[in-house]
This record gives sequence, structure tokens and C-alpha cells, in this order.
Amino acid sequence: MSSTKVKVAILFGSKSDMPTMQKAAAVFKEFGVSYAAFAVSAHRSPELLAEILKNLEAGGTDVIIAGAGLAAHLPGVVASQTLLPVIGVPIGSGGLGGLDALLSIVQMPKPVPVATVGVDNAGNAAYLACEILAIKYPEIKETLINFRKKTKEELAKDGGAVAL
Amino acid sequence: MSSTKVKVAILFGSKSDMPTMQKAAAVFKEFGVSYAAFAVSAHRSPELLAEILKNLEAGGTDVIIAGAGLAAHLPGVVASQTLLPVIGVPIGSGGLGGLDALLSIVQMPKPVPVATVGVDNAGNAAYLACEILAIKYPEIKETLINFRKKTKEELAKDGGAVAL
Amino acid sequence: MSSTKVKVAILFGSKSDMPTMQKAAAVFKEFGVSYAAFAVSAHRSPELLAEILKNLEAGGTDVIIAGAGLAAHLPGVVASQTLLPVIGVPIGSGGLGGLDALLSIVQMPKPVPVATVGVDNAGNAAYLACEILAIKYPEIKETLINFRKKTKEELAKDGGAVAL
Amino acid sequence: MSSTKVKVAILFGSKSDMPTMQKAAAVFKEFGVSYAAFAVSAHRSPELLAEILKNLEAGGTDVIIAGAGLAAHLPGVVASQTLLPVIGVPIGSGGLGGLDALLSIVQMPKPVPVATVGVDNAGNAAYLACEILAIKYPEIKETLINFRKKTKEELAKDGGAVAL
Amino acid sequence: MSSTKVKVAILFGSKSDMPTMQKAAAVFKEFGVSYAAFAVSAHRSPELLAEILKNLEAGGTDVIIAGAGLAAHLPGVVASQTLLPVIGVPIGSGGLGGLDALLSIVQMPKPVPVATVGVDNAGNAAYLACEILAIKYPEIKETLINFRKKTKEELAKDGGAVAL
Amino acid sequence: MSSTKVKVAILFGSKSDMPTMQKAAAVFKEFGVSYAAFAVSAHRSPELLAEILKNLEAGGTDVIIAGAGLAAHLPGVVASQTLLPVIGVPIGSGGLGGLDALLSIVQMPKPVPVATVGVDNAGNAAYLACEILAIKYPEIKETLINFRKKTKEELAKDGGAVAL
Amino acid sequence: MSSTKVKVAILFGSKSDMPTMQKAAAVFKEFGVSYAAFAVSAHRSPELLAEILKNLEAGGTDVIIAGAGLAAHLPGVVASQTLLPVIGVPIGSGGLGGLDALLSIVQMPKPVPVATVGVDNAGNAAYLACEILAIKYPEIKETLINFRKKTKEELAKDGGAVAL
Amino acid sequence: MSSTKVKVAILFGSKSDMPTMQKAAAVFKEFGVSYAAFAVSAHRSPELLAEILKNLEAGGTDVIIAGAGLAAHLPGVVASQTLLPVIGVPIGSGGLGGLDALLSIVQMPKPVPVATVGVDNAGNAAYLACEILAIKYPEIKETLINFRKKTKEELAKDGGAVAL
Repeated sequence: MSSTKVKVAILFGSKSDMPTMQKAAAVFKEFGVSYAAFAVSAHRSPELLAEILKNLEAGGTDVIIAGAGLAAHLPGVVASQTLLPVIGVPIGSGGLGGLDALLSIVQMPKPVPVATVGVDNAGNAAYLACEILAIKYPEIKETLINFRKKTKEELAKDGGAVAL
Repeated sequence: MSSTKVKVAILFGSKSDMPTMQKAAAVFKEFGVSYAAFAVSAHRSPELLAEILKNLEAGGTDVIIAGAGLAAHLPGVVASQTLLPVIGVPIGSGGLGGLDALLSIVQMPKPVPVATVGVDNAGNAAYLACEILAIKYPEIKETLINFRKKTKEELAKDGGAVAL
Repeated sequence: MSSTKVKVAILFGSKSDMPTMQKAAAVFKEFGVSYAAFAVSAHRSPELLAEILKNLEAGGTDVIIAGAGLAAHLPGVVASQTLLPVIGVPIGSGGLGGLDALLSIVQMPKPVPVATVGVDNAGNAAYLACEILAIKYPEIKETLINFRKKTKEELAKDGGAVAL
Repeated sequence: MSSTKVKVAILFGSKSDMPTMQKAAAVFKEFGVSYAAFAVSAHRSPELLAEILKNLEAGGTDVIIAGAGLAAHLPGVVASQTLLPVIGVPIGSGGLGGLDALLSIVQMPKPVPVATVGVDNAGNAAYLACEILAIKYPEIKETLINFRKKTKEELAKDGGAVAL
Repeated sequence: MSSTKVKVAILFGSKSDMPTMQKAAAVFKEFGVSYAAFAVSAHRSPELLAEILKNLEAGGTDVIIAGAGLAAHLPGVVASQTLLPVIGVPIGSGGLGGLDALLSIVQMPKPVPVATVGVDNAGNAAYLACEILAIKYPEIKETLINFRKKTKEELAKDGGAVAL
Repeated sequence: MSSTKVKVAILFGSKSDMPTMQKAAAVFKEFGVSYAAFAVSAHRSPELLAEILKNLEAGGTDVIIAGAGLAAHLPGVVASQTLLPVIGVPIGSGGLGGLDALLSIVQMPKPVPVATVGVDNAGNAAYLACEILAIKYPEIKETLINFRKKTKEELAKDGGAVAL
Repeated sequence: MSSTKVKVAILFGSKSDMPTMQKAAAVFKEFGVSYAAFAVSAHRSPELLAEILKNLEAGGTDVIIAGAGLAAHLPGVVASQTLLPVIGVPIGSGGLGGLDALLSIVQMPKPVPVATVGVDNAGNAAYLACEILAIKYPEIKETLINFRKKTKEELAKDGGAVAL
Repeated sequence: MSSTKVKVAILFGSKSDMPTMQKAAAVFKEFGVSYAAFAVSAHRSPELLAEILKNLEAGGTDVIIAGAGLAAHLPGVVASQTLLPVIGVPIGSGGLGGLDALLSIVQMPKPVPVATVGVDNAGNAAYLACEILAIKYPEIKETLINFRKKTKEELAKDGGAVAL
């Protein structure tokens, strides 16, 4: 397998996670940031995971986003196998509302951190990835500045007043 | 490293987990079941973990007990690397009272189960290990039968009445 | 009632639990492991439960799976009446999302452990039962090895890459 | 064992529960209600429990209080073996603060109710027992009326004002 | 308003609670126990509540069931105004799944207990009311004994075995 | 932007919060209390928020209601920028049932309080706003007195009895 | 009992709540706002509570602060008996960390709101009371403006930098 | 105020947070990464916060760590005022064990993410900051690689075996 040349990799354990993780992909498409996505399991296909991570590092990937539900180990396992910053997306499923996934990701012991975002909030994972990339790539910083400015202008254009 | 010839292995991620995990060791000592203990981290020393597991399997170990706190990945990671039954002990630490460790262990997705016991209840992990061993080793079954009988007799000897 | 000759028994308290518990049966069918299922209540039909357990032990059953919801006592009550390993499946129902059943099963005091799996995860209970059986029956070990190998190959066959 | 002639029985699973359950005994002493106390386990000494319950019923006991911690099965198991009203006291222990015991007691499925009071609130269990007894024994009703009246007078005697 | 002559009163704060509370009424109908139901609010119609309770006591009511959701004060307020045993039914509503109502009812401070049953489990409240009544009315004890016996026979008639 | 002359302002972060917040507006319409509503974000449009608050203060607004979901910062941020009393409405969304929004609002550190009401209970926020206004405006006090009286009469008119 | 002429009343159910509630009194002393404090129980001394509230209303009190723990009914019961704004302080006690008191106060159904502050945060209750009073009393508004200004200056005086 | 030339800034709202946040400083000292620390409140000193952030950006800071307890708004407010990556540290305090702070930080709505680490785990925040810096500064990448290697070697040197 050859190296994978993208700035960000999006990993998730199960195809059922795809609708959630597409919210991250949508941000990268809008901002013109290269990415690749992989369905890979920390526990059912560890060798595949190791190979994907090796290729990503070889290709110069800067940030990894990993989403998982239940006892969500994927982000932490990825963080243990790379020194790239890993952003974890807890995916809500079942009756515990994602609290299981949230705690399984955010409570990682030191020195193996996962940068955790909110339950099912893969969009925020992508924004965070861009903020991280922006410390290295000035053009992404520029994109973020313009996006935030545009957001403010849109929200402000009618003074916020609404009929209720 | 040569193979490790014990019926049960007790694994845990941090030396601070030792007082809790000793409750398992105490049961094995009382029941005469061979065991070995290892401080090993799923994330900080994955190669060591893989080697320990290989040696345990080579030596004929039947059951593995793994204890961990916080985003407690060790039991699940062990379960993904062996087909021996893995018993998980959530270790309570910090303000969340062990709920984080409990959910990180018990909510493992299929087909990688962890046989979870109560928070900090390493003693129960050992009893469960013995029950599992007992389906294979008649002498351990005998030990368990005698233990349960003796427990009942002790509890019953004064009819339960207490002065309150 | 004559003895029941199966390797695994699946018990549950209410017919409404059947769709969840069928996920365990499906695994045993796939793996060719003999099992029998019983709807029996720890509290509403204790004599029936005692009789079923006696027959199972007489027939040589090795592992018991018990599923229950709410204040889920069935797995613990079973564990108090047998020395076979008991696997508990918390069944989610009502507004508490299965947290009630999970805690009622996993927090069993020593020395009466229940090997608890995730909420509604009866499939994982079956995999765990097979891992336990595999320490005694080499052919089940073989089945598990092949299953895990096949799972890995399937997951790995396209390198994990997906279009997102 | 002869029959036990008391209006109320106080049961609990472990001698470590005694300080909590003594708060119930104190109320019965104050109100002159006969009671007896038993340390008995639903799971470790089920035969003893059955015998105690048989003696209590034979002796004319009216109400049973049962306290337990963790996966607190004792109140529910008692309720399944008698038709006397059973009052459950969840006992807080470990990091989950008694939420485990509370849910294991209060979420009993129908038709096997347990009248649950607050975590560690054995005093309230005793007051509740007295209210139940009072529907049958006018002198206990009288005691409760006097107690409530006296409580109100004491609380009201200085108009409630305090220096803060 | 004249006195109300029923053994049990069912109170609840909002007409939206009626489907849940009807499960209690159904039990009383089946068992032939007289009851009356009232929609009354602890906070919005306190005078009406006081009047209803006075009439119930005058009429000889023995047990009160009170159901409420959210910050469920009705059962506790009723318990503060009568010395009859009060059974509380936490009603699940909104995103907290009934945990709010459960804690608002069960955690009543002494000496004002509420006999709490499971979330939305008004059926169990009725069974508990019958158990309380049965210490005074032998015919209700008889009814309960027959019901439990019949339940056991039905559950046992096919030995519990089901096809899964 | 000119000053905004209303007694109450209703702020919320996202248009998806409108159905919830309209329950507050409905109360103000019924009671004849002037209000204005604004969709404004604490984090995405901070300048707009500052301008709206300045205009509200200039116009003599007395009370601000702010609703938000998830990590609900809007009420607290508003409270940090004004000394008017701020009422916070936690809006339930996602799997955590509004517990996230509740804690993010109610646990504000001193000396920046937010007067928090129940999850999604914007109607109660409006009643609370009216109670606050009533300490200054006697006609609103009058309105509240009449409303409470009318509510009691309606609830009491049939003695509360319902057929169940 | 004569009328009580204070701007704020501080109520709490148990003398054990005094250390927490004194944090409110300290703020009123610092700001020169008149207050009175009462230990009074919603459930054990309801007549006393009614009398205190009548006297407070007669004396012109503007705001009531009520603190309670466990199934904390006092703030809601007060809110049902007055139309003055009621601020609720959940008091943490026991193993549930104050979550019980928080939910019992904040989840009050409409139209009986309680303005809830954080667990044990009686200081914030006092600041909130002052903000409410400030819509009527310009001198209290002045005090708050000065206090906030002074707080900012103190925090800002060294530019925030600390040695860590 | 002149610009602040450090790679990382550590912000926290209260001096009581210092012992927790010093765990981050210790990592930066060990790894030779420049940092500065500021006690600054999102709500009590917003102008100071704005000025600190402006100086940090002017000085070329790459990453900000912000710790807060209770309704922990500081990390989110910082994230709304800068496009630098912000790492949030929930600080446990009071009876809710840090769950309040965790949810107030991690559940930030898009597009204002906070990279959240575990409760009180400021050490992990520092490791995460280093991983982020390492995508830009090769020497920090080198430091991390050596640290991870050394950690593994230390953990592995005795094969993990411990006497239990």
C-alpha cells in the first residue's frame, strides 16, 4: 500500500458511523482541505489500523479524526500508535445517549491524550482540525478568518431581532 | 522471554491499581490457583502487552483478568488480542466514581466481549475466573462447592439474628 | 423433567426480552454450539428457576446467559444458585436507558459474580460464552480462531478506505 | 427454630450495613414497636433467608425492612418470597454514591414491588413501617399523631427565626 | 364535600399522567379493591388537595398513591399532610427519563417518607397498596396469595422452555 | 440601532430553539407584558450580542431570558455583560437529554448568577420574569394574583375527582 | 407575630444547612441589604411556613431565597404559596452530590418557577437577589455596578499573569 | 501591554485551579516548550481576557490551554475569540465530580470547538498541546518521539511482571 497524501484522515469503526462522520467531510470540502476516510476497527482489524496509520504518517498527514460509539476505544488506540494530534468524536448510540462513548474517549490517561469534541459533533472535529492545521498552513488560517467573519456578518445582518 | 505457566494472569495499567488488584490475588492464593501479575499499559507499552499475551497463551493460561481506571481500555485491548476469556475490573478514581471505567469496559462492541465485574471488585473477578476454570478443572469446581457450602454454614450458624 | 443436554442455556425474565436475546441464539447457531432457551422469572417463578438450573447442571451445561431489564435480578439470582459461570445481559427499557439494569447486574457483591456485557449486547454474551467454552472444547477454540481471522480479512480486503 | 413474634423485621446483607440500619431500630425503640434484626444474604445464604421469612410470617410479622448496597437484591428477593409489604433501604457504598443500590431496589418489575426510601435513610424506612402498621394498630396511629404534633410545636416555638 | 369511602386514593398532578396511573386502577379493578382518583396539584391547588385528603381520612381511606413527573413534589406534599402510607410513582417525562421525578420522590427527608416504586410503574404501586391493605384485610391477603400462586402456575406450565 | 423599549428580552442562540422559546412569548402575550426576541450567539456573534444588550439597557429592559442547548453558554455570557437579572432556559437536544445544558447554565460561579428554570421550560421562565417584574410594577402583580386565583378555581371546580 | 420588614428572606429546612446559607447572608451584609433568616420545614412545619410567608409579604419583602437538600421541596413549596420571586439553592448532601436537590428544585412545573442557582452556591443566590432588587431600588443597582467594576479592576491589576 | 512571546498559554479562571494546571506547566518545563500562565475570568474580567488573547496572538502563540470548573465557560469563550486551537481542562469541584465542567466544555456547538481532555487531566492537555505544536516544530516532534520511546523502555524493562 502506498502512502496516503492528505492533511487529515477520518477514521471510524463501523459503517453505521458514516452519516455522523460525513459532517466532518463536509467541512473539509467547503474549506478545500484534503482528507481521506477509513472504516477500520481498533479491535477487529488492528493490523489494518497499524498499516493505515503508517501510510498516513509516511504521506505527511497532520491530524487524525477518529469517531466511535459505545466503549469507544478507536480514538485512544490511534493516539497510542501515532504522535499526530488525534481528535475524538463520541458517537451516540443505544440508551446511554453517548455518555459511554464520551467518557471512553475523553478520560484517556496521560500521556496519551485525545482531543475530544461533543457527542456526534463531527463538524466541530473538522473545525478543530482546521484550527490545528492553521498553525502551520497560513492559507487555512486565512480561510478560517474569512469563515468566522462571514458567519458574524450573516448573524448580525438583521440585528438579531426575530418575531416570536 | 519464556512461556508463563499459570492458569490466570492479572494485568493492570498502573502501579496505583495494585491495592485493588491484590483482592484478586488473595482469592487465588486461598483457592490454590496459579496466577501471575503484570503491570502493563495498553497504550504506553503495546509491544510489551503483545509479548506478555503471547507468552501466556504459549504457557496455557486459561483466563485473563485486566483492571483499569478512567477511559479503561486495557481489558478491551487485551480481548482484541486473545481469544481467552477476559474479565474486566473497572477501577474507580477521580470524581466520576468509576462510571467512566465501567462504561469503557462493559460497553465493548461485538464480537470482542469483556466479562465485566463491579467497580473495584477484583475479588469478584477472581471468583468468576475460578467459575470459568471450574468447567475444565474438576478440582477447582470442588473447591468452589466447598467454599460456598462453608460460607452458607457460617452465615447460618446463629440463625442470622443480630442485636440492633 | 429430564436433564437438559446443552452447552449453554439462555434465560430471560420476560417474553419482551426475546428479540434482544435472539442475538445470542444467532451466534450459537452460526458456531454450531448447542443451547436451550427459557423464559423464567427470578421473582415470579423461583421454583421453576431452581428446577431448570438443576436440570441444566445434571445435563452438563457449562455456561448460563441471563438477560433482564429494570432492577435486573435474574443474572445475580442465577449466579447465587449455581457455580457455573453466569453471563448477564442488561436489557434497556424505559427512560433510564438500561443504566438501571446494568448496575443491578454488574455491581453484584462478592463472592457471587456475574460476567456482565454491554446493554442489549446479547451477541457479545454469546461470543463470551464461546470463549469460555473454548478453554475446554478445542473445536470451539478452532471456530473462534477461524471467525476472528475471517473477520479481519473481510475488514482489511479494501484497505479500509471509504468515500465520505 | 421457633416463630419470631415481632411487628417488624429488619434484614440486611452485611454487618457493615449495621450503622445505617440502626437508625431504623432507634425509631422503633422510641415508638415502642417490637422488631427483630437479621444479617442474612439473598445470595450467600438463601436457605437461611427462606427460614427466617417463614418464621416471621408464622409469628405474625406485618412489615419487613431490607437494606442492601451495590446491586442490592435483598429487598427484591424478600419481596418475591413473602406477600408482606417490604421496605427497601438503598445503602450507599463505593463511588456510585448509592445510585446502584437505589436503582436495583426501586426498579423492581411488577408484580413484586419494594417500597423504596432514600439512600441510607433507614430512619425513614422505620417511619414508613409505622405508617403502614398504623392502618391496623390504632395505638401506633396515636403515637404517630403525637410525634408529628410535637415535631411541629418544637419547630414553631421560636417562629423559625435564626441569626445568620 | 362529603367523605370519600374507598380503601385507596389515586392522586396525580396532571391529566397527562392518566395513562400511567390507569395501570394502578386496572389492578384494583381486577382485585376488587375500592378506589377513587383525583387530579390535583400540590402547588397549583393546595386548598383542594387539603380538602381531598381530609375527606379521604374521614372516609377511612387506608393508602394513598400519588404520581408526578419532573420535580415531583405531590407524593411528598401529601405525605406531609397525612399519616396514611403514601406510595409515590415517579412519572418519566422529558429528556431526563424520570430520574428527576424519582429523586424528587424517593429522597424525601425523615420523618416524611414516601414509599417509592419504579419510574412509570403505577401497576407496582397498586400491588404494593394491596400488600399494605392485606395486613389489615384478610380477604385481600387471600386475593394476593391466589394471584401469586396463579402467576407461578402459568409461568411454570411449559417448564419455561422457549424456541429462540 | 435605536434603544429597544420592552420590559423583557428573549434571547436564544439558534433558530432551532424557537419552538421552545415561543412558550415564553405566549405567556407575555397573555399577560400583556412587552417583550422582544433576538436570535444571537454568545460565541458566533459576540459584537451583536453586546450591541443588543446595550440597546436593551438603554431602553429600560428589566429582565432577560436566554435559552441555549448543549454547552449552553449564552445565559452565562449575557449575565457577565449586564447586571439585569438573567433567566436561563436549558434546551434539551441530543442524547444527554438536556443535562449538559442544565449544568452549563445553573452551575455558573459567583458572582455571575443565572436564574435557571427546568429543561425546555421556557413557560416557567416567563412566569418567573413576571414575578420579578411584579416587585416593581403593581399591575403585573395584579395580573399574577388573578391568574393564580383563576387557576385554582378551575382546578377546584369539580373537586378534582376523575374517572380512571 | 408582627410583620417582618426586610428586603430578602433566607429560608432553609434544617440547621445543618446554615453554613451553606451563611454565604448568602455575607453578601447581604457586604452590600447593606436588609434580610432575615428562618429555619422552617415545608413538610414538618407547614403552618409555621405559611405564617412566616404571610408576615414577609405584609412587611414588604421582595425576594425569597430557599435552600434545601435531598428531595428539596422547600423552594417549590414556597413558590406555590407566594408570588414573590423565589431563588432556590440545592444543597449537596449524601452520595448523589446534590443532583437530587438540583433536580427537585429546578424541574418545577409551570406556572410555579423557582430561580435555581448552582449546588451549594448560596452566594450566587444572594447576588441574583440583588440583581432582582436592583430593578426596583436604584441604590442597589449602584452597589452592583461598583462591585463589578471593582472586581474587574482587581482581577486586571497585574494583567492576569501568574507564575506556574 | 506588550506582546507575549510563548508557544503555549495556560489560562484558568480561579487561583484555586493552580494545583491542577501546574501539571501542564510541569510537562512544558520537562519538554522545554515556552509557556505563560494567566489567571483570568471569562465572566468577571472579559476585557482583560480580550487583551491577553490579543497579546498572545500578536506574540505568535500557537496553542491555548484553558481550565475551568463548574459551568466551565472559559475554554469556550476563549475559543470564540481566537482561531488558535483551544484545549479545555474540566476541573472537578463540588459534588458533581467534574461532570458539570466536562459537559460545559466538550459540548460546545459548532463552529467553536474546544479540544477537551479528561477531568483534572491538565498533564494530558500539555501532551496534546505538544502534539499540535509538533506538526509545525520538528524539534518538538523529536522530543515527543524520544519521550514515548523512553516511556516504553522503562515500562518494558522488567517484562511487566510484578509480585501481587
